[in-house]
Amino acid sequence: MLLTIIYIIAITAEAMTGALSAGRRSMDWFGVMLIACVTALGGGSVRDVLLGHYPLTWVKHPEYLMLTCAAAFITILIAKWMRHLRNIFLLLDALGLIGFTIIGCQIALQMGHGFVVSAVAGVLTGVSGGIIRDILCNDVPLVFRRELYASISFVSVICYWICLEIGMPLELTVIFTLVFGFSLRCIAIYFGLEMPKFIYQDDDSDSASSTDRH
Amino acid sequence: MLLTIIYIIAITAEAMTGALSAGRRSMDWFGVMLIACVTALGGGSVRDVLLGHYPLTWVKHPEYLMLTCAAAFITILIAKWMRHLRNIFLLLDALGLIGFTIIGCQIALQMGHGFVVSAVAGVLTGVSGGIIRDILCNDVPLVFRRELYASISFVSVICYWICLEIGMPLELTVIFTLVFGFSLRCIAIYFGLEMPKFIYQDDDSDSASSTDRH
Amino acid sequence: MLLTIIYIIAITAEAMTGALSAGRRSMDWFGVMLIACVTALGGGSVRDVLLGHYPLTWVKHPEYLMLTCAAAFITILIAKWMRHLRNIFLLLDALGLIGFTIIGCQIALQMGHGFVVSAVAGVLTGVSGGIIRDILCNDVPLVFRRELYASISFVSVICYWICLEIGMPLELTVIFTLVFGFSLRCIAIYFGLEMPKFIYQDDDSDSASSTDRH
Repeated sequence: MLLTIIYIIAITAEAMTGALSAGRRSMDWFGVMLIACVTALGGGSVRDVLLGHYPLTWVKHPEYLMLTCAAAFITILIAKWMRHLRNIFLLLDALGLIGFTIIGCQIALQMGHGFVVSAVAGVLTGVSGGIIRDILCNDVPLVFRRELYASISFVSVICYWICLEIGMPLELTVIFTLVFGFSLRCIAIYFGLEMPKFIYQDDDSDSASSTDRH
Repeated sequence: MLLTIIYIIAITAEAMTGALSAGRRSMDWFGVMLIACVTALGGGSVRDVLLGHYPLTWVKHPEYLMLTCAAAFITILIAKWMRHLRNIFLLLDALGLIGFTIIGCQIALQMGHGFVVSAVAGVLTGVSGGIIRDILCNDVPLVFRRELYASISFVSVICYWICLEIGMPLELTVIFTLVFGFSLRCIAIYFGLEMPKFIYQDDDSDSASSTDRH
Repeated sequence: MLLTIIYIIAITAEAMTGALSAGRRSMDWFGVMLIACVTALGGGSVRDVLLGHYPLTWVKHPEYLMLTCAAAFITILIAKWMRHLRNIFLLLDALGLIGFTIIGCQIALQMGHGFVVSAVAGVLTGVSGGIIRDILCNDVPLVFRRELYASISFVSVICYWICLEIGMPLELTVIFTLVFGFSLRCIAIYFGLEMPKFIYQDDDSDSASSTDRH
């Protein structure tokens, strides 16, 4: 099945990006494994917990868990040569983003949810693994500060939804959404497209203490 | 129903505080929406996941999700004039805190839990949206470092519980608890009341590395 | 029952380490209680939510929740003398780590899961309370940067599993795993044993902005 292949590519790529993040924080091997697993499988887990969709994917298929651990371990071994592969990574990550989005969206639809909830499920699956990774590495999640990322996940959901609504067969819809979202992401990276930012500053005198007045 | 109106006011106010937090971190529009949703709906989601109370509110009523997104979007547009409205905000936020607390407490009681669990459910619903917001914005959650906040949520639960125990009708209990908690919070803000703080310092020589010795 | 006694010692010790962490961040009493509860009960809650094992321990037994609050409160009172007790703490914490691991592993096995999932459940129960504590206190979780900790939890799971496989009775298995894991942890602390670290650095020119290129 096409989606399974994409899923495997996606979790492998995400596990590797997670491992590199952990390496930037000089974590030990165990931490690297954990960050890799969370990055790869966290998005799906968040979606499943919020929708009450049990058992979670990695509980049902522990082999995916072992795959991400293996990917993390390989990353440790080949990290030296990793930076020459950065572009390949960005492409795999883009493929993963759209793949995760489609899978999340599909699961919510199968559970009988409507457009809004399945859109949220799709975007959550696509982006929240990376968000948890950034929280564990103590960064402000960069998903919200770089080129178009979460928004491409959202646009892919809309594309997927429209294709299904106009009666396109499922297989074709998946392929079309993949190509569409993947191309969008490549364009966004190439041209450095960004969402408009919302910049807000309190002009109080107590600037130091008021950085996050509730 | 009174509680629904309060709930809607509360999630709108919380969504706006979330959007402002995101703006202080210069996030893009998508990040602003997500932080707004998490701040407004995260408390209830944490409670529901921990109590196993499915489906979550926003899954059952996706319109609340759209309301918080709309509130976030409006916040982006009117942010310039926001600081003149700070006091109104603090009042709405106080109303939201008590409203969330009552709702969380009531849901736990309806599920048949006792005082301790329903108190935890009430306080969690009241404060954890703000905590997740602060984590995503990479701050130490300020809930624990400002004027009385979480503790007012807790005192409101006690008030609510006592009213029910002495046989006050539910409607009256809700109104009484709201007025009581809201007044407490206003008094706390006005006089800058704070909980006693617990300050602990290791006096080790290895001070740099031991900031968080487990 | 042996495990219940260990569990109570473990949550008390973990609550105290949580309270001290909160004190290092000058949180108010309410924050101290919350951090203590999350540190003590968070690991089990994460495991239960991920496995769909409801109700959570503290929902079923609210007395454990009150115990952790009491432990946090006592910690505030006796913090001054705490640093003389550091070694006792490290031992209690080690006992807690192994106890949590065994409990988590056992619950997953009782639910019918295989080795991989029960290993994850054991390690999660052992370490994720401390991880959430560090996130709430805005630190990079130190679990991954100190002496052997998570890995000892993992080795204990393997020991537990092997003992059961070779037909050792449950009681004996629990005691043997406890002694084995506890000794390992003590050795690791005494000799300062650490996992190998994975250190990765981008050698880009845009070093400041690329600290976490996805």
